[in-house]
Amino acid sequence: MRILIANLGSTSFKYRLYRVEGGTESVVASGGYERVTDYADVIRQALDALVADGAVDEPSQIDAVGFKTVLGKDLSGCVDADDSVIAALEGFAAVAPAHNPPYAEGIRQFQHLLPQARLIALFETAFYQWVPEAATWYAVPKTWHDAGIRRYGFHGASHKFIAERSAELLGRDDVAKVARGLYTDGPREVAGAPLRVISFHLGGSSSVTAIRNGVAIGTSMGFSPQSGLPQNNRVGDLDSGALPYALKTFGITLDEAERVLTKESGLLGVSGVSNDLRDVRAAADDGNADAQRAIELLVHSARQWASSFLFDLGGLDALVFTAGIGEHNAWLRDAICRGLEGFGVEIDPKRNADCRGGEAVVSSDASKVRVLVIPANEELVLVREVQRKVAGCATCK
Amino acid sequence: MRILIANLGSTSFKYRLYRVEGGTESVVASGGYERVTDYADVIRQALDALVADGAVDEPSQIDAVGFKTVLGKDLSGCVDADDSVIAALEGFAAVAPAHNPPYAEGIRQFQHLLPQARLIALFETAFYQWVPEAATWYAVPKTWHDAGIRRYGFHGASHKFIAERSAELLGRDDVAKVARGLYTDGPREVAGAPLRVISFHLGGSSSVTAIRNGVAIGTSMGFSPQSGLPQNNRVGDLDSGALPYALKTFGITLDEAERVLTKESGLLGVSGVSNDLRDVRAAADDGNADAQRAIELLVHSARQWASSFLFDLGGLDALVFTAGIGEHNAWLRDAICRGLEGFGVEIDPKRNADCRGGEAVVSSDASKVRVLVIPANEELVLVREVQRKVAGCATCK
Repeated sequence: MRILIANLGSTSFKYRLYRVEGGTESVVASGGYERVTDYADVIRQALDALVADGAVDEPSQIDAVGFKTVLGKDLSGCVDADDSVIAALEGFAAVAPAHNPPYAEGIRQFQHLLPQARLIALFETAFYQWVPEAATWYAVPKTWHDAGIRRYGFHGASHKFIAERSAELLGRDDVAKVARGLYTDGPREVAGAPLRVISFHLGGSSSVTAIRNGVAIGTSMGFSPQSGLPQNNRVGDLDSGALPYALKTFGITLDEAERVLTKESGLLGVSGVSNDLRDVRAAADDGNADAQRAIELLVHSARQWASSFLFDLGGLDALVFTAGIGEHNAWLRDAICRGLEGFGVEIDPKRNADCRGGEAVVSSDASKVRVLVIPANEELVLVREVQRKVAGCATCK
Repeated sequence: MRILIANLGSTSFKYRLYRVEGGTESVVASGGYERVTDYADVIRQALDALVADGAVDEPSQIDAVGFKTVLGKDLSGCVDADDSVIAALEGFAAVAPAHNPPYAEGIRQFQHLLPQARLIALFETAFYQWVPEAATWYAVPKTWHDAGIRRYGFHGASHKFIAERSAELLGRDDVAKVARGLYTDGPREVAGAPLRVISFHLGGSSSVTAIRNGVAIGTSMGFSPQSGLPQNNRVGDLDSGALPYALKTFGITLDEAERVLTKESGLLGVSGVSNDLRDVRAAADDGNADAQRAIELLVHSARQWASSFLFDLGGLDALVFTAGIGEHNAWLRDAICRGLEGFGVEIDPKRNADCRGGEAVVSSDASKVRVLVIPANEELVLVREVQRKVAGCATCK
């Protein structure tokens, strides 16, 4: 099977062609365009290049195209990218202005240029389709909720992969199977003890998701990706009364305030140093109090969000760290897990220090709660979800 | 000792005179005025009435006046209500427009009319003075933080009383003593096992506070009283990206959006029925799905906030319910505690059902975590804090 992954930005188009054989995915071609104004034109160029380079004899050999869409109005999941997906993306262009319009346009062009291919959209919100309703509502009037002001959650592809992979590593093939088949078969019950996992996706943007038996029951990001944990330059959680107060106090416009909250806050805003945790950490080590504070806020928020799911999970079996920051910073994993021995969490200092990016167990043998590091590969996750959707889950790994 | 409690609203002035003897407080006179435009005038009338009614021979017999102030810029605590308090209140008039200007004006008039009396302001934020810094910051730029955009917490008088009274009821006199002396002596260490309490203040407005050895370590309300749990008609937690989206989507003004979030949201907004939980519950019992949802959101949010403090508390010894809704609704206490047996929480159904407002233990004898109901009496709390401040803590109960 040949699967093309189409990555559409507000002025860019990147693609990668995968060949899937015997359950193994390999990249056979890739390319991209910047400063794009005409998506039809660059997509046509890309398909021509795939033929010219010998990746395919003709574009019709591409079996499926996968799109990692962000969120749509009244629609989520891993679904055929048809006109209803285009409408859902366009209906939420105001919520995700940098992402939704290019994806809507890109899907439209692929419908036209590759009519034989199966087009699949995997929404970032898909993993949260089965979160209990009470965890998805804000206490706004129904008109506001119906207009789309609710908790969606993001980083769904990453956290769902953690649901699958952590269950495999913990010897719970029953739970792994539920997680793998979620988008084709829906959530299913498992017999035996529940598997309760908290997944820390810590990267340029960060979120914490609680997973019970392979299914998400809550996550730290809500309506927009600027909620939850402090992000690299986005604010994370903020009292909704703060924005009106800032407008009046500083005499700034709504656009200016939004720029502050989405581009000049988070690690960058608090530290005054950088939006890159490595720089912030270096400054903190040099004694910069603002940088130290930024790190403390990140750790505190990650711990508090994780803790917030304990009552609903009913207990804890594993903590998992993934994404750039989560995979590569033993000191941050240590800070987040510190003092949690009473909850059965015990980091093994050497194992933790030795893990710099690979898959690893970093808790001690005595730790009741397993602490895992699992590298994220969001594009590969998308390739696999597309396969499952096309082939039906029973036949794919 | 005679203590006058002065309650100032945006167009009202109410007062109650307490006589304190041998550790017992009794009300000797009370009164009030509505549609107030001239605070100096009504305060003078009130003092004259106290003399005319024989409550005091002359106003100079009033030893102290207590003010339950909400929040001030760069100032909190239980402090002498001097010019710095007036400045702090006026500096945050934009944050608490209905409360701060009348209190600033009222304090000014009492300075003038009762120059011999000790004027004491107990800020609603006072109990949170020792919350770890990482729990008080939003990830905003330093200029925003310095302008006052941080987590303050509210209902401080109520939660501090819970800190004192729960420790007494749990036989921890050492912790009770720390809590009682907090505003005169500051936080102090206690020997032995930590006492970890989560306090649910559930009323017209609601909050959850985590208390360790008599000292608050975190609370659900942040910058404004419209954050945290869904309130009777205020929204509670909301993604800060929702407001800009609502302005653009509905084409409404900032004032209109603020009115929705502060007056038409919460239990009222979600249920579409009422801002009174009794009405919402009655509608839910009649099968109204929106009313049922409003209750589910309140329960979910209370549980999630309580859970969020577990990691930092390091464990749990007691859950306490206070304020109108918390004291009088066994079904709500039951819903919040449901399924928490794994955390050592076990409600005794009969004890819980029998408790309709009084002080009670409603957990079973086998419950590792004690579940208590403690009635709130915020005015009496203020009277006691004023006594402590005036007399020094060692001499007061």
